[in-house]
Amino acid sequence: MKAKNAIYAQSGGVTSVINATAGGVIEAARKSKRINKLFAGKNGIRGLLREDIIDTSIEDIIEIKKLQHTPGGIFGSCRHKLKDPSSNKREYERLIEVFRAHDIGYFFYNGGGDSQDTTNKISQFTIDAGFPVNCIGIPKTVDNDLPYTDNCPGFGSVAKYVATSVREASLDVQSMSESSTKVFIMEVMGRHAGWIAASSGLAHDKNNSAPHIILLPEVPFYKAKFLKRVKDTIKKHGFCVIVVSEGARFKNGEFIADAGTVDSFGHKQLGGVAPTIAGMIKDNLGLKYHWAVSDYLQRAARHISSKTDVDQAYAVGKAAVKFALSGENAVMPVIKRTSSNPYSWKIDKVKLSRVANVEKKLPQKFISKDGFGVTEACKNHIRPLIQGEAYPPYKDGVIETASLKNKLVKKKLKTFKV
Amino acid sequence: MKAKNAIYAQSGGVTSVINATAGGVIEAARKSKRINKLFAGKNGIRGLLREDIIDTSIEDIIEIKKLQHTPGGIFGSCRHKLKDPSSNKREYERLIEVFRAHDIGYFFYNGGGDSQDTTNKISQFTIDAGFPVNCIGIPKTVDNDLPYTDNCPGFGSVAKYVATSVREASLDVQSMSESSTKVFIMEVMGRHAGWIAASSGLAHDKNNSAPHIILLPEVPFYKAKFLKRVKDTIKKHGFCVIVVSEGARFKNGEFIADAGTVDSFGHKQLGGVAPTIAGMIKDNLGLKYHWAVSDYLQRAARHISSKTDVDQAYAVGKAAVKFALSGENAVMPVIKRTSSNPYSWKIDKVKLSRVANVEKKLPQKFISKDGFGVTEACKNHIRPLIQGEAYPPYKDGVIETASLKNKLVKKKLKTFKV
Repeated sequence: MKAKNAIYAQSGGVTSVINATAGGVIEAARKSKRINKLFAGKNGIRGLLREDIIDTSIEDIIEIKKLQHTPGGIFGSCRHKLKDPSSNKREYERLIEVFRAHDIGYFFYNGGGDSQDTTNKISQFTIDAGFPVNCIGIPKTVDNDLPYTDNCPGFGSVAKYVATSVREASLDVQSMSESSTKVFIMEVMGRHAGWIAASSGLAHDKNNSAPHIILLPEVPFYKAKFLKRVKDTIKKHGFCVIVVSEGARFKNGEFIADAGTVDSFGHKQLGGVAPTIAGMIKDNLGLKYHWAVSDYLQRAARHISSKTDVDQAYAVGKAAVKFALSGENAVMPVIKRTSSNPYSWKIDKVKLSRVANVEKKLPQKFISKDGFGVTEACKNHIRPLIQGEAYPPYKDGVIETASLKNKLVKKKLKTFKV
Repeated sequence: MKAKNAIYAQSGGVTSVINATAGGVIEAARKSKRINKLFAGKNGIRGLLREDIIDTSIEDIIEIKKLQHTPGGIFGSCRHKLKDPSSNKREYERLIEVFRAHDIGYFFYNGGGDSQDTTNKISQFTIDAGFPVNCIGIPKTVDNDLPYTDNCPGFGSVAKYVATSVREASLDVQSMSESSTKVFIMEVMGRHAGWIAASSGLAHDKNNSAPHIILLPEVPFYKAKFLKRVKDTIKKHGFCVIVVSEGARFKNGEFIADAGTVDSFGHKQLGGVAPTIAGMIKDNLGLKYHWAVSDYLQRAARHISSKTDVDQAYAVGKAAVKFALSGENAVMPVIKRTSSNPYSWKIDKVKLSRVANVEKKLPQKFISKDGFGVTEACKNHIRPLIQGEAYPPYKDGVIETASLKNKLVKKKLKTFKV
């Protein structure tokens, strides 16, 4: 079979290990004689449409290896949803044009549920257009809400960051609580699924009762019941640590905090539930509080990434190339748990048609009966994912990162407006 | 000289290394034959007043060693300002009563500027009362605003957390900026002095232009000038990372964000300047933003503490005991920089009367001419303080901490209302 070029793009929010996946793809592609060059879309699918294509083959392998400890998305990412081909043929035709112009035989698309759906549609379109390209989706999302995979690369590291940060901050507020701060609220990511908030339960141990309350998107929020629980917790422990998911909402579905803007997928842009909860506590209980919103810090925190997560992120990248070369199409590598204790896993695959737009929420058995916490089953499920420290190198006291040339290949096509 | 007991208390906000200092005090006291037992005040000076006194002599040395990697204040802390003896003799007399009842010859008080002032007054009062106790202040504050010391234990670790987190989050927002988030705002601590915000300047390197704007309490905030700088930065770099000190204020001294409550020292309790700045950017420039408030996470983040900071925190604890045993009174150990490049330091001392209530702000030469950043001189000054990683041990994927019995000694006095 004639060697072809391949192209990789990442889309949606980045993680602390998405570059490790990119590294896995690049390294595997370099080892194959059936892939000439591996290109990367600049800023995700938008770069492909614009023919802004990075030639990764000129990068030094030393820098490529550094991708394993570089947070952010080294080729850029985007928020851009390709609509269905029936209403948006223009963008799909452009992709075919770009694939053809650059002799692309393999397409790797790293993203969450929306991106898997897009990859599936692109795959079908290339077949229908008579220019079949092997399209492989690659799982990534800190929200951990993709189905058919034990977990999503990016999540384990956020879980480790959250569990560690909550344990640390809890010891802090506990010290202060007798005469000062009694309540600490930490807002974490998780728009629809409470996986990240749930991971804070791993901060518990024999010395640590915190977090005392976890507010999940899966459990409707009742203000009076919540305030009573805060009061009871203070009475019992002298302080109260609350972890709240950005997607926590009232029974009618309304988010506790809602910034009022939407992204290009039509998702509401959230942020600020922690100060809202703090205000409720101040107004109703008159307690002194502190609150934190870690926002991008949590998903970018490569300095505290889980080794398990880094290993898995790298493995799905390598597997994507292997699947493409073995003729697979419209599939996604998944992590399959083969044992929980001790944890072991292998890479498997699933058809994209099964993944697309399915959200894996926190199952009921992982949520405590009172709705304010997580069960032992939940902790046992998440714990393996935060194992191991994959410390990055430091230079001058700060995390060291990769430096790529990110040189664009010469354009061959007319300008296309995205 | 007859052996006496000693007592240690910590006060004010805790740090990720304040327990390392406590460990230094305990270990040094155990080695001396002139100190019988080292007690610790439960929840700071309030515990002393209440005769809530922990006997540290029964703790296992293995757990004491773990204090070097345990964030929070293991004996508790407090917000409680002893007023001047002239208006508040009652509390000072009670302290003498407690010191007498427990045969205290040495008092170690770990805190910021307010606590050093308190220690100085207690020292004088014990002399005036005819029961002289060697009182040694120990420096601690993430704000880094104590004079006569190269830096304050606690600061170096926050500086490392902030520089690392800003570099990580900057790579994240840079990836997203072409079609999504263009502005990222990170709020950091620093009520009056901009040391913590300034340390974010260490995130710069050849790959990283961020942070682009640092808002310091020392520089008056002008909204129009600031918004223009944001706009210009986006034009030049495509994204803009802003680090803002909680104490950033307008020319008239008004804080940009003011939660409206005060602590027992009369300090305004701050929080929420990041969303305020975000609101300005949304309303005036219409840019998509994200913001983070790290709050307690930054000062509790033992997982990313600076080794230099841990070493210095431990050293000031040991030195405090040494000074007390050599007959010093009303002094504080300080860190003296003996060389900047390579960084070297030794422990010296300063009279508490010189330290009390003096705030060391960021000097003018450390602030860039335009007021939106820090100079190379500033970075060169702070850089040594974030050197080295003093990784804690992990258990089940989460930072492992000390477990003390914290057993109280039997009370000998009547109840005292604090």
